[in-house]
Amino acid sequence: MVWYSDLQHRVSRKYMPFKYLRTVNFVDTDGAGVVFFANVLTFCHGAYEAALGAEGFNLREFFSDRGELILPIVGAEVKFYRPMYVGDCLQINLKTKQTSDVEFEIDYQIYKVEHLDRVLAQASTKHICLWSKERSRAQLSPEMQAWLHKFS
Amino acid sequence: MVWYSDLQHRVSRKYMPFKYLRTVNFVDTDGAGVVFFANVLTFCHGAYEAALGAEGFNLREFFSDRGELILPIVGAEVKFYRPMYVGDCLQINLKTKQTSDVEFEIDYQIYKVEHLDRVLAQASTKHICLWSKERSRAQLSPEMQAWLHKFS
Amino acid sequence: MVWYSDLQHRVSRKYMPFKYLRTVNFVDTDGAGVVFFANVLTFCHGAYEAALGAEGFNLREFFSDRGELILPIVGAEVKFYRPMYVGDCLQINLKTKQTSDVEFEIDYQIYKVEHLDRVLAQASTKHICLWSKERSRAQLSPEMQAWLHKFS
Amino acid sequence: MVWYSDLQHRVSRKYMPFKYLRTVNFVDTDGAGVVFFANVLTFCHGAYEAALGAEGFNLREFFSDRGELILPIVGAEVKFYRPMYVGDCLQINLKTKQTSDVEFEIDYQIYKVEHLDRVLAQASTKHICLWSKERSRAQLSPEMQAWLHKFS
Repeated sequence: MVWYSDLQHRVSRKYMPFKYLRTVNFVDTDGAGVVFFANVLTFCHGAYEAALGAEGFNLREFFSDRGELILPIVGAEVKFYRPMYVGDCLQINLKTKQTSDVEFEIDYQIYKVEHLDRVLAQASTKHICLWSKERSRAQLSPEMQAWLHKFS
Repeated sequence: MVWYSDLQHRVSRKYMPFKYLRTVNFVDTDGAGVVFFANVLTFCHGAYEAALGAEGFNLREFFSDRGELILPIVGAEVKFYRPMYVGDCLQINLKTKQTSDVEFEIDYQIYKVEHLDRVLAQASTKHICLWSKERSRAQLSPEMQAWLHKFS
Repeated sequence: MVWYSDLQHRVSRKYMPFKYLRTVNFVDTDGAGVVFFANVLTFCHGAYEAALGAEGFNLREFFSDRGELILPIVGAEVKFYRPMYVGDCLQINLKTKQTSDVEFEIDYQIYKVEHLDRVLAQASTKHICLWSKERSRAQLSPEMQAWLHKFS
Repeated sequence: MVWYSDLQHRVSRKYMPFKYLRTVNFVDTDGAGVVFFANVLTFCHGAYEAALGAEGFNLREFFSDRGELILPIVGAEVKFYRPMYVGDCLQINLKTKQTSDVEFEIDYQIYKVEHLDRVLAQASTKHICLWSKERSRAQLSPEMQAWLHKFS
């Protein structure tokens, strides 16, 4: 308990710039009665979308492949500690890290809103900035760099 | 900063029918850039879940097949009038109709929250009450009948 | 064996212009241990894609919104008779009907491959042809009309 | 006319690892016109299911949480090298590794069937064996160990 309290304290001051809430729907569960593993990464992407939308990004343009730049996901990792059930209200804490001029990572900590001292799962995604036509590396836009800074 | 993905917990229900809010996620869209048609029915089921949860039903028990009764969906219909895009905040108005001792229907009207005068899609689902073991018809529970009455 | 052969014979001559096989995956099921209702329509769309691909349509171009014409789904219906489980190998029989110069419908009958005498579900989708920019009604292309004729 | 959606039942398994074929469906793509990242892990789970089914495991029992043992996924990783499009026919090569009496890993290499020299993505999942009631670690069953050996 002391350990968790302490962790919570650290997390809330240093690591928690964006909080996303999401209720688990029935469609997210599988025949074992819990959230299907890959859907946890889908929840995390929802947090990413919300953190972009909250800063004024137009999501439809942002995720389109018709602009000059695209930001595909090049890798993802997820660890599962506890199952999630239909009706659970989840909180996802999102934290960004710009790793170079052309790349960034996002970390996600997933909790039930009524147990913020117990991580249910944690995940990360890696993103790269590319020219959409040539598919060659491109520098992150100033807007994106500002966004990354804000939630780092 | 907090972002509500699917706002059923904040939704007011002062007037019938039940209102459910839900943001369209990127995963819900398809290669044509709009919500994949079948996902609209999934959104409607989310409204159904929220309307049950709002009245105190335990969703995990409710949707399990381990209780005495089950309430499978036996039919669904949906009509699409306008496309939905990532980031759209949808409002689904849900209305129930008990059609017999053992059956009920739910109607759904889907809007963008900023255009409540323009229906994007409408749908309905038909449900039947069965004994979970015998799969024979069973009378709807008093709790379920009360729920159906409330949102009718 | 004779029974199945016979059935197969009848079906293939009279009722089965296109057959699509698909195994139910775990992700398709929900917490009640059966296929989530809206996913049945997703399976049907898979049959539609396969029937297009089998006739040489380039699916990536066909479903893009960047060509001159688009063919959005404007309505769908589905009836469920029996549950479907993970590992079930389904057969979907697809039949088309051109209803006007600009519209068509597709009917789907869903079976387990080992019980082609018992329909698990049936569905239909309605499609309309539009100019992609103006979103006004457009005549179905000769290729599409040929496809519709082939599986009618 | 027959079209095979996910061809595990036709797949040859003469050489290790297990090979699984799967066509990308429209629902798997997102508004950028490519497969949504988390769906690649869902495809990998399909390969896992097929490799179990091919060895005679009853998938409905296997993935249920009602038996004595459960095998939850405790971690997953995925790297993306090239995009996948609707209609692409993918081959997933699956290889197992028993890492202890109670744990195993599965590696997945994903290709287009017509370019088996170019990996599109690779992934891995970690699984642990638990007593379903106590949620404490349990030894992998002999059947599961044999399966793991076969595809290692």
